[in-house]
Parts: sequence; C-alpha cells; structure tokens
Amino acid sequence: MSTSSQFGADGRLRHLLTLDGLPRDAMVALLDRAQHFADGHDARDALAGSAICTLFFEPSTRTRLSFQRAAQRLGADVLSFDAATSSTTKGETARDTLKNIEAMGVRGFVIRHKQDGAVAALAAAAEPATALINAGDGRSAHPTQGLLDMLTLRQAKGRDFSTLKVAIIGDIRHSRVARSDLHALRTLGAAEIRVCAPESLLPDDETLHGCHVTRDFDEALVGADVLMMLRLQRERMEEGLVSSLEDYHHDYGLTAARLKRAAPDAVVMHPGPMNRGVEIDDAVADGPRSLILRQVANGVAVRMAVLEALLA
Amino acid sequence: MSTSSQFGADGRLRHLLTLDGLPRDAMVALLDRAQHFADGHDARDALAGSAICTLFFEPSTRTRLSFQRAAQRLGADVLSFDAATSSTTKGETARDTLKNIEAMGVRGFVIRHKQDGAVAALAAAAEPATALINAGDGRSAHPTQGLLDMLTLRQAKGRDFSTLKVAIIGDIRHSRVARSDLHALRTLGAAEIRVCAPESLLPDDETLHGCHVTRDFDEALVGADVLMMLRLQRERMEEGLVSSLEDYHHDYGLTAARLKRAAPDAVVMHPGPMNRGVEIDDAVADGPRSLILRQVANGVAVRMAVLEALLA
Amino acid sequence: MSTSSQFGADGRLRHLLTLDGLPRDAMVALLDRAQHFADGHDARDALAGSAICTLFFEPSTRTRLSFQRAAQRLGADVLSFDAATSSTTKGETARDTLKNIEAMGVRGFVIRHKQDGAVAALAAAAEPATALINAGDGRSAHPTQGLLDMLTLRQAKGRDFSTLKVAIIGDIRHSRVARSDLHALRTLGAAEIRVCAPESLLPDDETLHGCHVTRDFDEALVGADVLMMLRLQRERMEEGLVSSLEDYHHDYGLTAARLKRAAPDAVVMHPGPMNRGVEIDDAVADGPRSLILRQVANGVAVRMAVLEALLA
Repeated sequence: MSTSSQFGADGRLRHLLTLDGLPRDAMVALLDRAQHFADGHDARDALAGSAICTLFFEPSTRTRLSFQRAAQRLGADVLSFDAATSSTTKGETARDTLKNIEAMGVRGFVIRHKQDGAVAALAAAAEPATALINAGDGRSAHPTQGLLDMLTLRQAKGRDFSTLKVAIIGDIRHSRVARSDLHALRTLGAAEIRVCAPESLLPDDETLHGCHVTRDFDEALVGADVLMMLRLQRERMEEGLVSSLEDYHHDYGLTAARLKRAAPDAVVMHPGPMNRGVEIDDAVADGPRSLILRQVANGVAVRMAVLEALLA
Repeated sequence: MSTSSQFGADGRLRHLLTLDGLPRDAMVALLDRAQHFADGHDARDALAGSAICTLFFEPSTRTRLSFQRAAQRLGADVLSFDAATSSTTKGETARDTLKNIEAMGVRGFVIRHKQDGAVAALAAAAEPATALINAGDGRSAHPTQGLLDMLTLRQAKGRDFSTLKVAIIGDIRHSRVARSDLHALRTLGAAEIRVCAPESLLPDDETLHGCHVTRDFDEALVGADVLMMLRLQRERMEEGLVSSLEDYHHDYGLTAARLKRAAPDAVVMHPGPMNRGVEIDDAVADGPRSLILRQVANGVAVRMAVLEALLA
Repeated sequence: MSTSSQFGADGRLRHLLTLDGLPRDAMVALLDRAQHFADGHDARDALAGSAICTLFFEPSTRTRLSFQRAAQRLGADVLSFDAATSSTTKGETARDTLKNIEAMGVRGFVIRHKQDGAVAALAAAAEPATALINAGDGRSAHPTQGLLDMLTLRQAKGRDFSTLKVAIIGDIRHSRVARSDLHALRTLGAAEIRVCAPESLLPDDETLHGCHVTRDFDEALVGADVLMMLRLQRERMEEGLVSSLEDYHHDYGLTAARLKRAAPDAVVMHPGPMNRGVEIDDAVADGPRSLILRQVANGVAVRMAVLEALLA
C-alpha cells in the first residue's frame, strides 16, 4: 500500500488507508478534532444530505456500529452492505460492488476486507469525489483503531509521548491493530516501543523496526507506562502456533499480579473483543487501570473526525 | 428478576424489565401516553440526537421493526445489532457487548434474550444514564407486549377492567407474553382471569395465582369478554407436549363456532405470528371480533411511550 | 397480474406492479420527474415522517440499497425486512407479514418475491392508503428497472425512440428485466426490438409479440443502436439450458470485436450484476459505449420519482 495513494493531487487527505506515512501534523489535527467530538459536540450539519456506506467483506458488527454512530452524529445518511453474506455470492467483484454503490451517489465508504491491500486497490478505482476509509484489511492496517488508541493515550498521559514506554503484547504477526499502533507511536515519538510475543506470533518482516523485541512478558512489563494487549484468535491454536490457551495465559496473559511489574500509573488497553482469561484477566480488564471502554468511546469521536476531514 | 431493579434511587422508572410490581399509576401513565401516540401524534424532538440500539440475542424481526419505528417517530438515531448471528461468535459475553455499545454513546437498549433474567442481569451492569427495555427474555417477561395488549383492551372495552372476564388459552407454560399479560391484568383489576391449556402446557410455578384454571376450552369460553390466544410453537410437538397439531386444533383451536360460546361482543387477541389453522382459524383471525392488527399498531405507540418515559 | 390492479378507483397510480399497460403519459411523467432527481435535486420534505419498508422475500442487496437511498433523499424513514432469512421461518404467510408491518404505520413497501404475481397478490391485501412497488417478482416484472433503462436511453439517444433499433441479448426466458424493458420500449415506441438468445433461453409465451427474434448474435447486432445484455445465471448451465459458460460466451458474449457490428454510436446496457467474461467482456463493460454505471445512478432517481408519485 503506497503511502502517497491516500493523498490527492492537491496534497489533501483523500482516503484513510494506513497510518504509515501519515504526516505528524495531519495525525495531530485529526486527534485534536476527535477530542472535540469526544467532549460531546455533534456536527449534524457537517454531512447532511451525504451518504456513507459501510461495506464489509469481512464481518465486524462493533466496528460497523461505531462508524454508523459517527456518521449519524455528522448528519449523514447511512447505508450498510454486509458483503460477507450477500451479493458477492452472485460472483460480482469487490470493485464492481464498490462502483455500483458509488454510482448510487454514495460519497464515503467504510471498508473491511480480509486481504492485505484490498482497500487500497478499491481506492484506486474510486471516482475523484469518493473517499474510502480502511476499517481493516488483512494484517496490514486498521488506521482508525490506531488513531483511537493514540487519542486514548493522549487523554491518559498527555500529548507529549517522548517519555512513554509502550509495550505491545500478543499476536503481533497477524494483527493489523498492532501495525497501525506501531505506525502511530513512531510518528508521535514514543520513547520506547517494546514488543512481546512467542516466536510463532512475531512478524517476520520489517514491522518491528526500532522496537525492543522480547519473548519474556515479565521483561516487557518492567516500568512500562502503557500495556497494549492483543486478542488471541482461537485459530492460532488450531494452526499450532500456540500450544494451548492455558499455556498462552500462563506465559502472556495479563493478570493483576503481573500488572504490578509495570509503572505505578501504567494503563491497560485492548482493541476488543477480549478473550477474558486468555490474554487478559477480569480483574485487569475491569480494573482501575483499564482504558478499554474509553477506547471504544474514542472510536466514535475519531471516526467522526476522519469522516469529516475526508467528506465535509 | 427483582421488582425494584427497574427503578432508580429517585423512584423513577429507569428500565422496563417486567410488569411484575409495576405500580398501577405508572402503568396507567404509560398507557395514557401511548394512546396519545396511537392517535397519530409524533414527537420528533423528544429523542433527537439520542441513539437507541436494538440488541437481539434471539431473533425477532417484527418486534425489532416495531421498536425501530417507535424510535424513528421520536427522532432517535437507531442502531441494530443482531447478536444471534454476529460477533458473539467471537466469544464475547453479552455483558461485554452491551458495555461496548454503551461506550459508543448509546443511551437506550432494546434487548431480547432466550434466557430468563438475562436482561435484568445486563441492566445491573449498565451505567446510570443507560436505560434497558426487555423485549422478551426466556419465559419470563415481555412487558411491552403486555402493555400493548392492555392498550388494545382499553380501546375495545373501556378503561375500567373491573367487570372483564379474560380467558388466556394455550401454551402459558412457555409464554413470556402470558406472564406479562397476567401481571398487567391483575394490576389493572380484571374481574376474572381464566387460563386454559392442556396439562402439559400449564406452568408449575406461582404464575397462575388467582386464576381460574381449566383444561376445558368450552368451559373457559362461556361468557368471556376477551380471548387471548397464544402461539403454539411447533417444538411442543417434537417435545411430546402435544400429540399433534390436529389434536391441538381440535381441543384448543379457536373456530368461528366456538367463538359463539363467548360473550356476544367478545374480542379476540393474539400476539403473533399466528399459526393459522392450529390455535386460530382464518375466519376468526380475520373476522370482525379480531383485534390482532390493532395490537400490532398499538405496539408502536406503547414502545414510543416507554422509550420516551425512560430516555426523554 | 392485471393491468388495472395498480390504479385506484380515481384512476391515480396506487401501486407500481408492472409496466404492462402503464399509459405512455404516466410513464413519461415518471421519467421527467426522475430526470429532475438525476440532475441532483433532493426533496427531503416530500416524505418526511413517512415510513417505507423494503420487504425482500428474495435477497438483493443492490436493489435494496438503491431504494433505501431514494427513500433517504425524499426524507422518509426506512425499515428493512430481509424475509428471506427471518421470521417467515416461523411459518407466517407473506400476507400476514405485510399486514403486520402495515399495521405499524408503514405506508410504502418495496417488495421482491421469487413467485410470479406475488407482489400483485399482496397489493390486493393492502389498505387503501398503502402503496406497493414491485422490486421484482419471479420472471414477470421489475418495473423500476424498466424505467431506469428508459431514462438511461433517453439521456443517451433523446426522447424520441421512433428510430431506435434495440437488441436484447441473453436469457429472456427467465428475465423479469427483459419483460419490463419490452413493455416500456413498446409503450415509448421503439422502432425495432430484436431479441436474441439460444432456443433454450427464449420464452414460449406471448412475451416476444412484435419482436424480431433470432438465434444469431451477429445478425442481431448489425446496425443496432442499443445493446441490452442480460445476466446469465449459472443455474442455466446446471439445468442443461446452456452447455458451458465458454460456449455461451463464444456464441452470445459481447466482445469489443462484436460491438463493431452495431451502429457506430451504439450504447451498451446491463442490469447487473455482470458475469464478466461470460455475457460481456471487460473491454465493453468498462469501455466508452457502456452506460452500465449510468443505469445504476438513474435507478436511484427513478425510484425517487416512483416513491414520490405513490406516496407524496
């Protein structure tokens, strides 16, 4: 996915496909505007009369609802196409599906797809006035998740990330969330990024450039300011990448006892949905350090800022 | 499900979980307001800017549509989560699903769940500003159905129920509709409540306290002012609780001939969807005594009154 | 489906069930109004406060989205009932489903059903103030598709069809699109209608009255001004009506080379979704003569005109 493909000829952000290469100024502007919406402001006139379509080739009810709520608060009309269950069964290509709904007058698309780069490929086929938001493609990117995580971090730790030690724990290899978080944390200048997973769940590409990589959870925790826990898909066990959920929890599950190794005011994040008792214990997920529901709340605000920036 | 859990510390109705224990004044106020909406009035400003989510862990398109229409007429934004088919497949608990959508800024939830007490359990986990409406849980309660049945009765028979003889016929044992109707009829002071079913479909708990119970349909019919027919689920036959649909129709199906045993101006109700030719014949369902479509129309009005009372 | 059933006692259009017998003046008025909407005008007050329900007994996401977008641009509230997957599983008849949603206060229904005449049968059961639009029934009719094709033709070739040579190629036998196009083309006075398909895909009824019928695609193409390609359902191969997709493409697929046989300014249409490489090649579908996405855009405008005419 080329960094430049999300900018128009005039240098303005046209699509949001990835945080990789998104300039710091553009990222900060989106976060500032998102904070405004997180403070409870609506902007019902911003997109009044415009239509936005959620076009999910891979199902995700939570992400869809979050974008729908954001669109509603901007006054947009919302259409929803669950491509995972519908007309693609008639053999239509994703590109034809997009072009057809675009022809109906839809200006903004929120797209999830299981293949890396699929959303960027669709963006290349869109008309000049059409904006696409990547709501997750393969393992590549989930930029609004990255932004909402940054907004949540700013609220908890302030706008200056230059002293922050952030640990990302879990299945980084298969995680688009981790990739978008890594892009954002680097752009915003986090002091130290630690990455922790069993060997089988570490990526084999350039993803971890500049990170401190360890297989030892306790080492990753010491003095960390932020713990970003990732969801462990059950498929990883079936694929033989982890031996059992019990073993995984023993080695990489965040318990109340382990949390004590982190900085005294460390915060805990998780993109959801959680596997309670696997990567995270109830006492942590529901405890005072958890920002997990705050992340969800910020998701709506961030998506409002992105939709407005691309379409208003 | 405790009676008190649906009231806030200030004594105000916070959730609508059951009609059991709902004070007569509160019930009458809801019915009066519902009549206002049934007369065709909208209130598009009442919930403008607020979001309501239908969260159905057990599918029911008709009930969902009725609540959606009610929310639209109050100006609310509507989100819909069919939990029976979606992300719960990822193993998320119902509580986490609720808390996540609540974090997106949704204030009102309309919830259906197949387990008794599930909605009350979710209500206990909700934030103070969040309101839940039970759209049916297990065999326990379906309070808006109870209210719409009462509104329909009031329109047909007047506000004074003290001379009314009401017969409820069918699978009371598995029916949340029957339980909510029984609660409401007692609260509003119906003169006589007759309950009629084969032994296998009668409840074994305190549900029928104060009712006249019979297995003889003809006895239940004589002089009755209101006949509330219940849907016979086909599963009852598979479970061996009824021998055949034909036998059931012979013993407990409402035919035009049987209807003549009731009071001359008796009315017929059914919560839908009907099994025509099983618990009710076409000539009755579509005849002049039938209030069945009137019940459906009143459903929207009652749900408007409830949403407004909880959220406006 | 009787021609007269879609008109009220006052002669006004009450439902849109078929284009068969729709007077030329009524058709032209709808097309003129649709052109107004195609020019970008909204009419947000036209149906404000009214509810429209898409009621699809056979799934079609694209048609549903097009009607939803049309309803939004008219300010209507939209409800959606995917009857192919929901409560009809409880054994309710289509008529009871319609009557129930109608009782909820829905005034307009957009209905698709796999049986010929099913929508007309439902129209006969509707209340006087309720309007139904046939969004496709069996092989019989898909009137808004016929209208949007005519609007597209008018934009490309002018309002006078009296010199137009139109060729319809493909599975006319099973196509409600073809039938509605034939009705409209005759009403608007097309000079010549050519119909081309293998014997197995030609209808055996009166559908082709007045058409020039041929099995030779090259003959059908010579000098044609308009090529209407039809979708080949893969079931036709399983049913033995075509020997293979390759053979079909060889005999009836529109390639760039074949297109040269038509008039120099010939235009190409397809109702979608396309089977690329079967009935149409990429070079044609995406080429300068293609009106396919223009058809989709016009679909919203035509549906706005129809909804407004029936309900405003």
